[in-house]
Amino acid sequence: MNEQGILHIPDSKFCFSLDTRRLVLRLRVDRRDRPEKVEVIYESKYIIQQKQQCSEMERKYEDRLYAYYEILLPLQDVRFAYVFRIWENGKGYYFSEDGLSEDYDFSLAYFNFFQLAYINEADIHKEAEWMRSAVFYEIFIERFFCGIGDKDRSYINLNWGDKPKPKSFAGGDIPGITKKLDYISGLGINALYLTPIFCAVSNHKYDISDYHMIDGHFGTNEDFGKLVKQAHKRGIRVVLDAVFNHCSELLPQFQDVLKRGKQSPYFDWFIINGEKPDKDKLNYEVFAFCDYMPKFNTSNPEVQEFLLNIAVSWIKKYDIDGWRLDVSDEVSHDFWRIFRKRVKEVKADCVIIGENWHDANSFLKGDQYDSIMNYAFTKACLDYYAFGAFGAKEFAWKLNELLMRNTDQVNAMMLNLLDSHDTDRFYTYVHKNKDRVLSAAAVMCMFVGAPCIYYGTEILLEGGYDPDNRRCFDWEEEHWDQDFGNQLRKLLSLRQNGIVESGGISTMAKGDLFVLSRYSDEGELVLVANQSGEKRSVSLRGEVLLENHFHNEEESGKGPEKIQGNLETDGFLIFKGSKDEVKVIKEVNEVEQ
Amino acid sequence: MNEQGILHIPDSKFCFSLDTRRLVLRLRVDRRDRPEKVEVIYESKYIIQQKQQCSEMERKYEDRLYAYYEILLPLQDVRFAYVFRIWENGKGYYFSEDGLSEDYDFSLAYFNFFQLAYINEADIHKEAEWMRSAVFYEIFIERFFCGIGDKDRSYINLNWGDKPKPKSFAGGDIPGITKKLDYISGLGINALYLTPIFCAVSNHKYDISDYHMIDGHFGTNEDFGKLVKQAHKRGIRVVLDAVFNHCSELLPQFQDVLKRGKQSPYFDWFIINGEKPDKDKLNYEVFAFCDYMPKFNTSNPEVQEFLLNIAVSWIKKYDIDGWRLDVSDEVSHDFWRIFRKRVKEVKADCVIIGENWHDANSFLKGDQYDSIMNYAFTKACLDYYAFGAFGAKEFAWKLNELLMRNTDQVNAMMLNLLDSHDTDRFYTYVHKNKDRVLSAAAVMCMFVGAPCIYYGTEILLEGGYDPDNRRCFDWEEEHWDQDFGNQLRKLLSLRQNGIVESGGISTMAKGDLFVLSRYSDEGELVLVANQSGEKRSVSLRGEVLLENHFHNEEESGKGPEKIQGNLETDGFLIFKGSKDEVKVIKEVNEVEQ
Repeated sequence: MNEQGILHIPDSKFCFSLDTRRLVLRLRVDRRDRPEKVEVIYESKYIIQQKQQCSEMERKYEDRLYAYYEILLPLQDVRFAYVFRIWENGKGYYFSEDGLSEDYDFSLAYFNFFQLAYINEADIHKEAEWMRSAVFYEIFIERFFCGIGDKDRSYINLNWGDKPKPKSFAGGDIPGITKKLDYISGLGINALYLTPIFCAVSNHKYDISDYHMIDGHFGTNEDFGKLVKQAHKRGIRVVLDAVFNHCSELLPQFQDVLKRGKQSPYFDWFIINGEKPDKDKLNYEVFAFCDYMPKFNTSNPEVQEFLLNIAVSWIKKYDIDGWRLDVSDEVSHDFWRIFRKRVKEVKADCVIIGENWHDANSFLKGDQYDSIMNYAFTKACLDYYAFGAFGAKEFAWKLNELLMRNTDQVNAMMLNLLDSHDTDRFYTYVHKNKDRVLSAAAVMCMFVGAPCIYYGTEILLEGGYDPDNRRCFDWEEEHWDQDFGNQLRKLLSLRQNGIVESGGISTMAKGDLFVLSRYSDEGELVLVANQSGEKRSVSLRGEVLLENHFHNEEESGKGPEKIQGNLETDGFLIFKGSKDEVKVIKEVNEVEQ
Repeated sequence: MNEQGILHIPDSKFCFSLDTRRLVLRLRVDRRDRPEKVEVIYESKYIIQQKQQCSEMERKYEDRLYAYYEILLPLQDVRFAYVFRIWENGKGYYFSEDGLSEDYDFSLAYFNFFQLAYINEADIHKEAEWMRSAVFYEIFIERFFCGIGDKDRSYINLNWGDKPKPKSFAGGDIPGITKKLDYISGLGINALYLTPIFCAVSNHKYDISDYHMIDGHFGTNEDFGKLVKQAHKRGIRVVLDAVFNHCSELLPQFQDVLKRGKQSPYFDWFIINGEKPDKDKLNYEVFAFCDYMPKFNTSNPEVQEFLLNIAVSWIKKYDIDGWRLDVSDEVSHDFWRIFRKRVKEVKADCVIIGENWHDANSFLKGDQYDSIMNYAFTKACLDYYAFGAFGAKEFAWKLNELLMRNTDQVNAMMLNLLDSHDTDRFYTYVHKNKDRVLSAAAVMCMFVGAPCIYYGTEILLEGGYDPDNRRCFDWEEEHWDQDFGNQLRKLLSLRQNGIVESGGISTMAKGDLFVLSRYSDEGELVLVANQSGEKRSVSLRGEVLLENHFHNEEESGKGPEKIQGNLETDGFLIFKGSKDEVKVIKEVNEVEQ
């Protein structure tokens, strides 16, 4: 046993409650170790000295280095104490806060058992349950659709469809989205993530000067109210971009500070080293190195109230369904804790999605965000589909590793994405190989967490890095690849499948095929993807629901629903199996490792 | 390299800021691995793609399984990105969020560097600096000293000095403490931790029925005010016991609920499953299984205000210096976050010490407590001095492991203890071997964190488990072991030494001797303890400050301050060396491992 590889952290993603009666425990070990059995020995912390219960844990996930054992425990008592027991060569080794030991003295257990001393309702991370069947569509508004017929078009400096430059304006707006809601709904989308909509001079509008007003180029507050109403009517939720790390230099409060320096009542709204903000010296904190985007001092209670009021009022007035938090990792934990309370007070299932590109677990303990934009998922897909850095095995390992970064609740609310306004388009990354886009989308749709489609993906819009990733949507239907669109639509519809919504997940490689299974009492859905570079023969028992480049051979006749065929490289198939099938797959996998 | 043994968790005790300009980084590796060099490669997160800085980390702590590399980095930019590089056999391996790799592409670093995206002032754990030189004395008030001359003694049912029973009353009170402040001060104590003082029917007073009134047996609120004033006059701080997890059934609010059930406005102050609390069914949450101690519903904002008002008013009215939080691990994180803010707002250096017997890192991230009662330290000392479970090496490893459980700030504010009103007395645990008590006290006084002496330790008061650990203090001076008392006093005075206050720490075994060194630019203090069961020969270069059973041989004459002698088992010595001496000790240690 590689003792140094064993890890358990109490009161963390390794031990968390779903409610006051259900607890998830995880234990990490070296993947190469194959203990005969891993158990948890547990009881109410006030009883464990006298008597203990014991349950076996399941080896549930494997990544490159580790295997993760997991158990979902129903609890009688919210005061929970436990140690693990790892069986090797017929001998059980105890694992407590003091590490591994051959014996364990329960009479002294109060010194070193692990514990979740009391499951307090207030500390439980509650899910925004709609996220389990959510399918997001991210819209960069300036480039989606121009819906205001009689608008002043004098600011527009880009012909619709021309290649955008950093300061291009093409004229997309909010009524444009409203007009396209049926189109969006038709894709199978039921949630919008809109880049910022408030007054700002840039085309991206991350430099906000008035947080209570829709930008004039985008429409009016009334237009936005109409969009939300029309979206809700179609069962589409609306998530807005909260740019609370910084603002525009044109924010009246910053303008006042520019004028009056320390005499301004707003001086402490920003972080200024000197008497006045000086653009040349850049003596004030900003986003990145952008002098026109001063950073808010979110420790200032006045700033907190200012921002919280914005967050709450757009929920109250327009009934929005979530906030995506721009540059959220640079804002304090303290602020996000207050933010969460205020937002959830107004609308309990208003989702809070941070923009952290990195392991954000310290923000995802239930007291701050619900989830993040899952750029680590993006990177994994790029490594598998675009960069050639991963084989099927490495891809499966990485996806498991990502699942183990956070609790089940967070995973269920993750915003999984292949690309966004901040990356090259995935289609461009894979050198316009549309089969790979579909295969990656299949993984995203089958994975735990909500998929987010960047506008235009469905019509194979191209684009390199900013500003090229913000091209105008091409509304000429004859330019569209209808087959691709149809396939994508089918994939997105998988999110409404009960098994995908709430089933377990198992991710692995079978040879050089990538296999992802979702399973529950309702049955099993299995995705098989081939990026091996060669055709692969696949046999399965079940019903093919969806495929791309899978050529069904004659049925083998060796039993009902037995199917055999060839899966081309870049192709995938999704089939519905019986519950038993999962077990078979798992066993095969275990033999192969 | 044991790749599975490598651990780094961003935005945690592995990466934390002391202020906006200084950051501590830690990287854990398998102890058996001895990389040629471990480096951190870092820069502002907006620059790291283009250029990087590099610094070598120090192998600073070793425990049974792991070695910990550490570095204190001065920062120019509060937006911090980094990866590690581990050198083995002349080759550098990068360690990022994606694990170990032979190469690292900084142009894609934004996907997987580690980061502390922005050091926000609001998230920094600020120290109550007085804790660095604090020496605590825990008083179980009922048994310390009876100071009210004319009190109604009718409740007293125990002759002073007789063996206490669970419901004994011996008459100790708050004026008794005030009268003994000179005695306490004479011991070298500069902080009191008092078990609860508010109205309660028990002798321990953890069943509080009025949080704004000193218990009648203990005196008056005026008496308490006098105690604090007199203590402060002597430079002694006062920390009270906050019993906020539960109260007494006699709390008027609970009484009202008992009478009126759901009709009571206080029904939601508690957690009741039914119409009314029913003692027979125990249908309400309580502390442990004590029906007379109902648990507060700390999610209820009214309860929060009730408790916060108590916490704040004792600071405001009586200027207390800290709260020790009873059963704090069973109260929500959410409550303690609010609690911290309110307390620190009123008195920034009011220390908050939780009672968590277990790894409490999830409460110690700077947003809740400052530290805990360090019962894991207690257990380590018991394993070394009482249970024979540890040799010197295991003891040194365990102490290092405990240091690595939390940040430097938390460690500096730890309340280290050998025993308390909740354990057997250490003297009793070690079978009345007073030399071992002294040796353990020497470790406690030299360790990082504030030592806490349980009243009576200095006079070798005995006591098994509760209620025996709460015996009456014996004020007959002729019963006292003056030598022991003097030695202990000398040990406690070490806390005023600048090196012990703020120096680094290095803990190791040299053969079967335990060695603990504290060092800074001012020099070095080294403790050597012998629990080998046999006499050991010790040679050193420096000045012996304190010893117990060290027999100095004739000076060897081989240089200034060279000392050689025999250290009996159970003995210890503390000497002051030059700064160089530390290095020598470290090198020797490294060879031996």
